Amino acid sequence: MLDKIREECGVFGIYTKTNTNVSMSAYAALYALQHRGQESCGIAVNNSGIINYKRGMGLVNEVFKKEHLEQLNGGKIAIGHVRYSASGTAHHHNTLPLVVKHVKGPMALSYNGNLINAPELREDYENKGAIFHTMSGAEVLAYAVTEQRLVCNSIEESLEKAMYKIKGAYSLAIMSPKKLIAARDPNGIRPLCLGELPDGAGYVVASESCALNAVGASFTRDILPGEIVVISDEGINSITTHCGNKSALCVFEYIYFARPDSIIEGVSVHEARIRAGEFLADEHPVDADVVIGVPESGLDAALGYAQRSGIPYGIGLIKNRYVGRTFIQLSQETRESSVKIKLSAMKSVISGKRVVVIDDSIVRGTTMRLIIKILREAGAKEIHIRLSSPPFKNTCFFGADINSKGALIANQKTHEEIRQEIGADTLGYLSIESVGKIARSANCEFCTGCFSGKYPIEVPDELPQDKFDLKLNS
Amino acid sequence: MLDKIREECGVFGIYTKTNTNVSMSAYAALYALQHRGQESCGIAVNNSGIINYKRGMGLVNEVFKKEHLEQLNGGKIAIGHVRYSASGTAHHHNTLPLVVKHVKGPMALSYNGNLINAPELREDYENKGAIFHTMSGAEVLAYAVTEQRLVCNSIEESLEKAMYKIKGAYSLAIMSPKKLIAARDPNGIRPLCLGELPDGAGYVVASESCALNAVGASFTRDILPGEIVVISDEGINSITTHCGNKSALCVFEYIYFARPDSIIEGVSVHEARIRAGEFLADEHPVDADVVIGVPESGLDAALGYAQRSGIPYGIGLIKNRYVGRTFIQLSQETRESSVKIKLSAMKSVISGKRVVVIDDSIVRGTTMRLIIKILREAGAKEIHIRLSSPPFKNTCFFGADINSKGALIANQKTHEEIRQEIGADTLGYLSIESVGKIARSANCEFCTGCFSGKYPIEVPDELPQDKFDLKLNS
Amino acid sequence: MLDKIREECGVFGIYTKTNTNVSMSAYAALYALQHRGQESCGIAVNNSGIINYKRGMGLVNEVFKKEHLEQLNGGKIAIGHVRYSASGTAHHHNTLPLVVKHVKGPMALSYNGNLINAPELREDYENKGAIFHTMSGAEVLAYAVTEQRLVCNSIEESLEKAMYKIKGAYSLAIMSPKKLIAARDPNGIRPLCLGELPDGAGYVVASESCALNAVGASFTRDILPGEIVVISDEGINSITTHCGNKSALCVFEYIYFARPDSIIEGVSVHEARIRAGEFLADEHPVDADVVIGVPESGLDAALGYAQRSGIPYGIGLIKNRYVGRTFIQLSQETRESSVKIKLSAMKSVISGKRVVVIDDSIVRGTTMRLIIKILREAGAKEIHIRLSSPPFKNTCFFGADINSKGALIANQKTHEEIRQEIGADTLGYLSIESVGKIARSANCEFCTGCFSGKYPIEVPDELPQDKFDLKLNS
Amino acid sequence: MLDKIREECGVFGIYTKTNTNVSMSAYAALYALQHRGQESCGIAVNNSGIINYKRGMGLVNEVFKKEHLEQLNGGKIAIGHVRYSASGTAHHHNTLPLVVKHVKGPMALSYNGNLINAPELREDYENKGAIFHTMSGAEVLAYAVTEQRLVCNSIEESLEKAMYKIKGAYSLAIMSPKKLIAARDPNGIRPLCLGELPDGAGYVVASESCALNAVGASFTRDILPGEIVVISDEGINSITTHCGNKSALCVFEYIYFARPDSIIEGVSVHEARIRAGEFLADEHPVDADVVIGVPESGLDAALGYAQRSGIPYGIGLIKNRYVGRTFIQLSQETRESSVKIKLSAMKSVISGKRVVVIDDSIVRGTTMRLIIKILREAGAKEIHIRLSSPPFKNTCFFGADINSKGALIANQKTHEEIRQEIGADTLGYLSIESVGKIARSANCEFCTGCFSGKYPIEVPDELPQDKFDLKLNS
Repeated sequence: MLDKIREECGVFGIYTKTNTNVSMSAYAALYALQHRGQESCGIAVNNSGIINYKRGMGLVNEVFKKEHLEQLNGGKIAIGHVRYSASGTAHHHNTLPLVVKHVKGPMALSYNGNLINAPELREDYENKGAIFHTMSGAEVLAYAVTEQRLVCNSIEESLEKAMYKIKGAYSLAIMSPKKLIAARDPNGIRPLCLGELPDGAGYVVASESCALNAVGASFTRDILPGEIVVISDEGINSITTHCGNKSALCVFEYIYFARPDSIIEGVSVHEARIRAGEFLADEHPVDADVVIGVPESGLDAALGYAQRSGIPYGIGLIKNRYVGRTFIQLSQETRESSVKIKLSAMKSVISGKRVVVIDDSIVRGTTMRLIIKILREAGAKEIHIRLSSPPFKNTCFFGADINSKGALIANQKTHEEIRQEIGADTLGYLSIESVGKIARSANCEFCTGCFSGKYPIEVPDELPQDKFDLKLNS
Repeated sequence: MLDKIREECGVFGIYTKTNTNVSMSAYAALYALQHRGQESCGIAVNNSGIINYKRGMGLVNEVFKKEHLEQLNGGKIAIGHVRYSASGTAHHHNTLPLVVKHVKGPMALSYNGNLINAPELREDYENKGAIFHTMSGAEVLAYAVTEQRLVCNSIEESLEKAMYKIKGAYSLAIMSPKKLIAARDPNGIRPLCLGELPDGAGYVVASESCALNAVGASFTRDILPGEIVVISDEGINSITTHCGNKSALCVFEYIYFARPDSIIEGVSVHEARIRAGEFLADEHPVDADVVIGVPESGLDAALGYAQRSGIPYGIGLIKNRYVGRTFIQLSQETRESSVKIKLSAMKSVISGKRVVVIDDSIVRGTTMRLIIKILREAGAKEIHIRLSSPPFKNTCFFGADINSKGALIANQKTHEEIRQEIGADTLGYLSIESVGKIARSANCEFCTGCFSGKYPIEVPDELPQDKFDLKLNS
Repeated sequence: MLDKIREECGVFGIYTKTNTNVSMSAYAALYALQHRGQESCGIAVNNSGIINYKRGMGLVNEVFKKEHLEQLNGGKIAIGHVRYSASGTAHHHNTLPLVVKHVKGPMALSYNGNLINAPELREDYENKGAIFHTMSGAEVLAYAVTEQRLVCNSIEESLEKAMYKIKGAYSLAIMSPKKLIAARDPNGIRPLCLGELPDGAGYVVASESCALNAVGASFTRDILPGEIVVISDEGINSITTHCGNKSALCVFEYIYFARPDSIIEGVSVHEARIRAGEFLADEHPVDADVVIGVPESGLDAALGYAQRSGIPYGIGLIKNRYVGRTFIQLSQETRESSVKIKLSAMKSVISGKRVVVIDDSIVRGTTMRLIIKILREAGAKEIHIRLSSPPFKNTCFFGADINSKGALIANQKTHEEIRQEIGADTLGYLSIESVGKIARSANCEFCTGCFSGKYPIEVPDELPQDKFDLKLNS
Repeated sequence: MLDKIREECGVFGIYTKTNTNVSMSAYAALYALQHRGQESCGIAVNNSGIINYKRGMGLVNEVFKKEHLEQLNGGKIAIGHVRYSASGTAHHHNTLPLVVKHVKGPMALSYNGNLINAPELREDYENKGAIFHTMSGAEVLAYAVTEQRLVCNSIEESLEKAMYKIKGAYSLAIMSPKKLIAARDPNGIRPLCLGELPDGAGYVVASESCALNAVGASFTRDILPGEIVVISDEGINSITTHCGNKSALCVFEYIYFARPDSIIEGVSVHEARIRAGEFLADEHPVDADVVIGVPESGLDAALGYAQRSGIPYGIGLIKNRYVGRTFIQLSQETRESSVKIKLSAMKSVISGKRVVVIDDSIVRGTTMRLIIKILREAGAKEIHIRLSSPPFKNTCFFGADINSKGALIANQKTHEEIRQEIGADTLGYLSIESVGKIARSANCEFCTGCFSGKYPIEVPDELPQDKFDLKLNS
């Protein structure tokens, strides 16, 4: 309902030495990763080489009923996935983990990211006789691995070879009959970290460290850009053939995508957001009475702005946590009334005040306009919008759903036009320079492509549209 | 999952002059009142004298599907209800609004509160031949009104007479074929307010003002303790026969039950909580590095404590908003791991710090013990628990689910025993004196019975147990 | 889909000496009685005086899931119900068994029939302060019993007294904390029989004997018209105060309502139908090549007709057993195509033949017209319709859904008009004289009111409409 | 519940010249074919080259809700499928139609039968890099077609080439962006027929002619063994390269699988069953009082036996049509009681009689033993079992689920042992000679492999087990 850029996925994998309740761990972990994908989810469990799975459209608590977890019970290895998707591909058959059978047996695969050359690869495979069941990049990945499986001795070697072919962002977890494999693209665009279960009981990989906590695992380290981690009965092994490239972690993971309690590349997401608020206070100071955050994504930066500026921090907007995907709008109801049900202003905090409002970003500007309207109705005297990221001006090719520049208000209008359209008194964005410093102690460089237009690897002019459904000849 | 005292209900009613979409308004209002009852909900719509309804176990977004709202579409009057219930009576047949047919036609009834003399009244009615379908006090209320309906000329007169008989707390909405009636018990123990739709389109009553905002209505006033408000085609009318008693609004509405953006008896709930935090800082100061709130109920008071004490405010605990009622626990999972999935500590805020933790109250102490454990694991050096209410020591007879003193840790143990059991370095409660002042500008007095043992009306020794299921003779 | 007169209910009750699985028995019995009511069903179980229940709209296999039976498990007494209802009252709140609490504890009640004086009784009770939750006659019955319960010593005495007040057809099962009571109206209009579980384990009552077989009980006897049977720990007892009236069993139970393997008043339903076919052959002979029955209700009589006439019996129409209540008709689909999906003609049996088609009755004639069309398309040379009942010309006041004479083609049109409208070559009905003889060895007389207009007790001019929803004054 | 050999599938396809409601037609047709597969079903619709689909576990009326049909609305071509499956593969991912994308665009495929060489083909394709998502032979078929698609000019040419590779029984419907293709294996083991919509509106293919009637189409002809029928905007075209082999229609289609109103290879299924009954009367005469059929599969043959023998035909067993897949058995309930709920004996027909009981076949004998028990309890004096097929002694390699000889009582025991085990007085099977003549006027020869062990094509020693799940190396 609130127009936000969406991260497209969260990935989880667990390997235990003895049969423990891996499906239950995956279930708990998907709750922790739910913010990375709320459209569909799934869990695949390897029970002595037989891979069973359950996937479905909806949130974890909608898809998984007790009987599903009971049916998936047992097994030593599991992988899980939460997913968003570009509009139009929200079909059941695109849910992950992908579970297939190939020349060496069953395989399950979860991934987060976007392959730039998926269409070309797909066409190649089709021209060799491949059949595709889904529109997902995961199936292209599966073919790339399977292709190498014909000539390689192990699944990890197959993946290593396949990684020469696939271009783009990917953090993935693959489950074979006997192994759990995790890997990250050579630029490390999407996060992926490794954890350990207590008492040497096993290993866990996850898109974010918050999922490690959820299953009682301790954080070990981030998986390196380009690294392949292989977990099996023989322990844990690392293949670093593809390592050594310039890293380019998506900086928006810190600003919005990740959960504040996650730690990515050694930096607390919460702290990075606090710092973004501080930089914002330096770059765009204003004389005001209160600083408020748009819940929940703006709260941390609002605290940082308040602390640095000395303006009091207030709780000025309340979010109704019961309004979810399934809120019913009968025809006569407008978008505006929906926002009013979801967000309400705290009159006593706002009324008669000059208010600094912090949010992470503006996409189309429609929600911000309504938020300002609600605040004005609550009596705000002045409204100063501060955003903890630079303006979105460019497509993301690596898994966030900025697939058309035309939908980005900052790409279409001037700063002043935007200010007027949303109805703010002033409007300030964090600069590109500062965004690069919010996680300055991180062990990595950042991708700021959506802000700067500069990408870590060569990208096409436009995000390639899938051309499969257009092949109508027969 | 978190052990909290639960408010037992939320009430809503709407009267429109022309057929507008009253079911849709009720639906939106129930979202706004959902925090007052998450076990079941219902809407009854009066369409030209025919009362249709839909009730069910679960949250608003679980019970109502598009087809239900479409079936309920049309009509000029509607009432709605959200409900918690004492354990054991969580049955479909206890969902509200109650919809019955009596001597003058159909009637629907929603109520929030608890009738002290329900068992006696019920026995009386049974001894005259009455049949009961539910275990709900609403059905006793319905009989009390119906009994008078035999000798009175109108439903409001019937209710006026019935109010001489019923004892306890009640805020209610009654829908007859042509009227919407709202009433509040003579002490005004539970809140109930009146609002107006724009352009004179109609009237709204709701347990909290946040529900008025949700339907686009403006706040008019609180309904007076003892007042009966009658809304019909002839406009709005007030019966004040039962007014004039000493008011005794439940003070815990300010501390925990109500939504922070609601205004009750002229006082912002959010401000009352800020003030509770300030008083707490005065009464229980401590040398510390950061003040954090337990989300979401402790956040406002934490801000008040921080502001008054000068200790920085921090966001130290994150709540996973996806973990709901339906989280599945397979046998091997413990309560502790569930809390870890629901709450996580922000290491960067906590680690190495002396932390003041603000929450609204402690009931059994089990959750607080786990929160403190999580904070210690995150590296907290000292943990100082501050509660924005006095210790719970007594039963509530008026609709909150404190039905057994034995479950209250503060009734069973000393201050020091509690501190040790939960593992805090220090523990401080808001005093009864201060709690009476958090909403000092309110137009009313307060009930502090659960803290002080002093109740606004005479109460029995124990909350009467329902004896109906024990009648086994035939 | 096929226009048929519908029986409105089936009743079941079981009493066991030790806790056996009474809910499972009720579940099995409701399958056996499902033909008597497919709109809703329910089971109430008495577990040590606590009555739990599950009711719902739909077939037994739709309403009851494994968890429901498990929740209802345990207990010594249970009653069940399957229900049709007049159009417009198909609401969840009208499902049975009714479960209420009254002066002496909980009570559950199932009934089959129709009370002629329900509206008057209901008004009486309302005028004394009664509240009604449903539109069901069962609630009137419950009040009639409860009213007496105030002055009587036992539930059976209360029922005995109540039976002086209630007029009409009723076969009922009542469950009190300690007893199972079954009763039949003084004319015995609806069937009800008694059975015994093996090894003296307990007793069973059911609308039809086929339900006894389903639970492994043996048939003991029909309950007498006017009899009250009381089953408790003290064994079985009979109250016969209301016995001795002229019996008047609904003859249409033999023709259509009951299952062919049931035995009612000593006569096999199947045999009665065979005999109806034989009488029909005598009364309306025709020169033809094959006799077919409309499945499933016409098959038995077709066999009787064939045997008596010497014309070969054939299987000429096949019914698709998968097409049920939930067949979806998109707008462009007509009633005709639905009938074609449900029924198909056996070309090889029909083509070029003179066909005698036997069905039980014609209501509106719409389906028969389509059947004849299908048979003609399959090549039938001549079609001779024979009906194993006389023409429906009158309202039923006793529980079958003939509630408006206007909908009965035989009430509106002449024999010749009907023949033409349905497109038959000839049309013959069983005579009222013969219908009285199809169960000639039965221990009872019959009600033929819907055919003859002669009713066993005084009836109003019209089936009283429920006036409750029309009371709009307040 | 009743142990029966199950046909594994039903196939449907429709091609219309203008956009008509093809999904609704597919829906109606699947109802007509439901007897061929009750475990899962699906419909795929081609809407201007985009193939949408809905598949699910369960009956047509369980899987398809109104919204699904509305979503599938529109389009000119559709295919549908109903399915049984061997135990263990009853997974959602095996439901059909299979919908994939390959080198030339999307393709959907339904099939009925079994490919003998599927495991070998699958291994071949895997060794070339193929990925499999399902355990279904349909996916092997899809690869066989796709492989040729790389070198052929059209989908029909690809299928023609693929048919040189695939061995076994298959009747299939393939939908490409612009065409509907139907084909039958060279021996025509499973049926498949062609029909025409009125007014030249389009064409229909279906496993049985009863599905043509359901959509208002007229029967044109059976598709020839080995024929490929291509339907497109250019009309209908036939490829007969694979025709000319000795036909070998599964004779059990006449005896049990097909619906009695279907006509296969010019012979009415109902007539073939009547004839089976007549032959049985000739081969196994007996002195008896009544002939009854086990509903529903034994009714036709019972009529034939009665007519030929002169013994009266009776309706001696009633089947409860409400007891379906979802009947719940709590632990204490036995298989016997379930059969009693499903089948009941007509005492008045059976008692004291010498009864000839006709059924189509015996598989394990368990149900027949219970039927005989029920009949004896109903008073049958003698019970003479007559089966309208020879004894099952051999595996079926062509799509019926006789996958293990060990489960076949006739393979394990002697005639006398079987008679004793089931408790019959006498037992008679139709001879293999006669079974070949029940459809003597058919335009084809028959496969009697399950009876005779003689198969139309070379078969392996055992039905190949799927070895995919056993590949555990990685």
